[in-house]
Amino acid sequence: MPVNLSTPDPSGLNAVPGIRLGVAEAGIRKPGRRDLTVIELAPGTRVAGVFTTNRFCAAPVQVCREHLAGGESRALLINTGIANAGTGARGLADARASCEALAAQLGCEPRQILPFSTGVILEHLPMPRLVAGLPQAVAALDPQGWFDAAHAIMTTDTIAKAASRRVEIDGVGVTLTGMSKGAGMIRPNMATMLGFLATDARVSQEVLDVLVRESTEASFNSITVDGDTSTNDSFILMASGQAEHAEITDMGTEAYRVLREAVTGLAIELAQAIVRDGEGATKFISLQIESGAGRDECRKVAYAIAHSPLVKTAFFASDPNLGRILAAIGYAGIADLDVAQIRVWLGADGEEVLVAENGGRADSYREEVGARIMRSSEIQVRVDLARGAAGATLWTCDFSYDYVKINADYRS
Amino acid sequence: MPVNLSTPDPSGLNAVPGIRLGVAEAGIRKPGRRDLTVIELAPGTRVAGVFTTNRFCAAPVQVCREHLAGGESRALLINTGIANAGTGARGLADARASCEALAAQLGCEPRQILPFSTGVILEHLPMPRLVAGLPQAVAALDPQGWFDAAHAIMTTDTIAKAASRRVEIDGVGVTLTGMSKGAGMIRPNMATMLGFLATDARVSQEVLDVLVRESTEASFNSITVDGDTSTNDSFILMASGQAEHAEITDMGTEAYRVLREAVTGLAIELAQAIVRDGEGATKFISLQIESGAGRDECRKVAYAIAHSPLVKTAFFASDPNLGRILAAIGYAGIADLDVAQIRVWLGADGEEVLVAENGGRADSYREEVGARIMRSSEIQVRVDLARGAAGATLWTCDFSYDYVKINADYRS
Repeated sequence: MPVNLSTPDPSGLNAVPGIRLGVAEAGIRKPGRRDLTVIELAPGTRVAGVFTTNRFCAAPVQVCREHLAGGESRALLINTGIANAGTGARGLADARASCEALAAQLGCEPRQILPFSTGVILEHLPMPRLVAGLPQAVAALDPQGWFDAAHAIMTTDTIAKAASRRVEIDGVGVTLTGMSKGAGMIRPNMATMLGFLATDARVSQEVLDVLVRESTEASFNSITVDGDTSTNDSFILMASGQAEHAEITDMGTEAYRVLREAVTGLAIELAQAIVRDGEGATKFISLQIESGAGRDECRKVAYAIAHSPLVKTAFFASDPNLGRILAAIGYAGIADLDVAQIRVWLGADGEEVLVAENGGRADSYREEVGARIMRSSEIQVRVDLARGAAGATLWTCDFSYDYVKINADYRS
Repeated sequence: MPVNLSTPDPSGLNAVPGIRLGVAEAGIRKPGRRDLTVIELAPGTRVAGVFTTNRFCAAPVQVCREHLAGGESRALLINTGIANAGTGARGLADARASCEALAAQLGCEPRQILPFSTGVILEHLPMPRLVAGLPQAVAALDPQGWFDAAHAIMTTDTIAKAASRRVEIDGVGVTLTGMSKGAGMIRPNMATMLGFLATDARVSQEVLDVLVRESTEASFNSITVDGDTSTNDSFILMASGQAEHAEITDMGTEAYRVLREAVTGLAIELAQAIVRDGEGATKFISLQIESGAGRDECRKVAYAIAHSPLVKTAFFASDPNLGRILAAIGYAGIADLDVAQIRVWLGADGEEVLVAENGGRADSYREEVGARIMRSSEIQVRVDLARGAAGATLWTCDFSYDYVKINADYRS
């Protein structure tokens, strides 16, 4: 059961002028499931992306990077079921062949197609079935296709993840709609396992390239489910430029600030949705690390807490066994950390309690308060490192029986 | 159920001349459990230790380090139930007071007592109960006390871990007996959650100090269960010097080689026993990383595989979903790794199969062979990085429903 997350209302997902989406049941890994998505981009749409840092990065990621660098893109092609990662030379050939097949149907060049895959690693794409599914997806292309597409990109997700926002730029209404997928193998190191965000804002390519990195850092790069960085992580920002405000070419403008806030806010919502639907998740945990000497060490502490199976199972059990959090801070890799200076708070539902100070449990801490907070479905852990002015925020989830069940059964 | 590990035969645990052990039921956290152990050392016994690098290191670890540096030790005092970690100034005072209480009974100085604790973090020791339990443990002191002591240091362990070896040094028989405990919060970074190894060999302090580090590196520092480095990790090597061979003062001698091999072999057996009894473990996994540019990068790759919840749950499910191993290698942090050069083998019961090469699945690999190997209780993964001559070995276990159950229930 996802944590405080429900299926998006289809009527709340706004069409983005210039963007159409269509899906198909291609039977890529299992029959009867929507598993193939085409996103068509109107001429003039600008695209920027960030991708996994996993050295075993998937074939479609390699082809997508190359095609992005080669000029204007006309469509995205997304399949689920097979990740096309760890597939060597044949995997690359399959990714290129799928671009050729879609380009032939849309009447564009193969290099104008951006391919994405998600699913099982180390297996090859069933090319005949994928290609045979394309006409169905192309025939279904529709500006209102976001709801169907958000379903068609799911793997172990239990719920579709999509959202819309509207902002005004220079007095002109601008739409942003995005979707994401992912529930396991989530520790994005550039972006997450497939996030797509489209807007009709008019933005120069240079500004879009900066915006995709800035918004990723605060959203998809600030979540973790299980610490496993995927081979296929991709986050794509598309701007059709059909809104009639002046093109944003300068990052010092109010227009950029408004757009950045909207893109980042929507990206955070989509990233948090992945954590809320994390495999087996029953709790949504926010980790806020403050007063570090640098952002890097704050993130080290946050990841140590977020990846500790002992901390995660204590959250699952609603057990205020908070020494496990201290132990994780202690082994996070800050060699000169003075544990006597650290303070740790636990919070939920507007209540916050000091748990640890002076190298031990705070005198004022009462177990029954900790126990009450741990029973909440949304919990905040705040750590003051007393070393400087840097900070970092990370969102994660707990670790339950169902995580094991889902991942022990995934291929069967 | 531990993996291919059974309770040691008491008659196979040899007494070490100069070493006596006694246990008591002090009721430190729960009544009716042996939870207090005293190990008495004959005058002249030399002791060397290595300890956790966790910055939140426990009070007894701090006191133990200080006492070890201060001269000859006469006894070890070990309690389970409470870790006395994250307990600030009061925790330090409690550790010192427990040394004073035992010193008074043994007629020695408090600085001659080495204290150890294991159990729940962030709670204080019940000092009156601990002190009241000491006479029972002292009265029970016996050279044959290893079997009882191995039980009395257990926490979530399901089985006691102890073993003996005999070697000849310069024609003189020498005995080594050791014990260890630990099942969760196991990713030793100097040593593991309590390992004790005693011998009657005659060794200089300088040589003993080197030997404890060398043997730790190959044993307790080469295991992981859940990646959580404990606050209380300690491994202690004791040499009573009562065997009548010439004192070993030179690491270039055959005598040192024989002793090192015996100590390291026994330490590996005790360390592997911790993995075999890892919380919820159903499989024992050996990771062998070869042809790395350095030992550090080999260990990075090994830990990335060993700590991936996705890899661990695949082992639990006997599912040859081996792309997860490639993904872990890919995100292990080697920036210039060429995945096309890597080869990965899977092995069990004397059979080994090449799984991946040329950036993808090996043409010769057959899923049914992988599936058969994955059903074994002892599995080897071998990775060739094709970058140099360095290597590393790491032992770990799988990740099961019972890991979650044990750690969600630990304090209840």
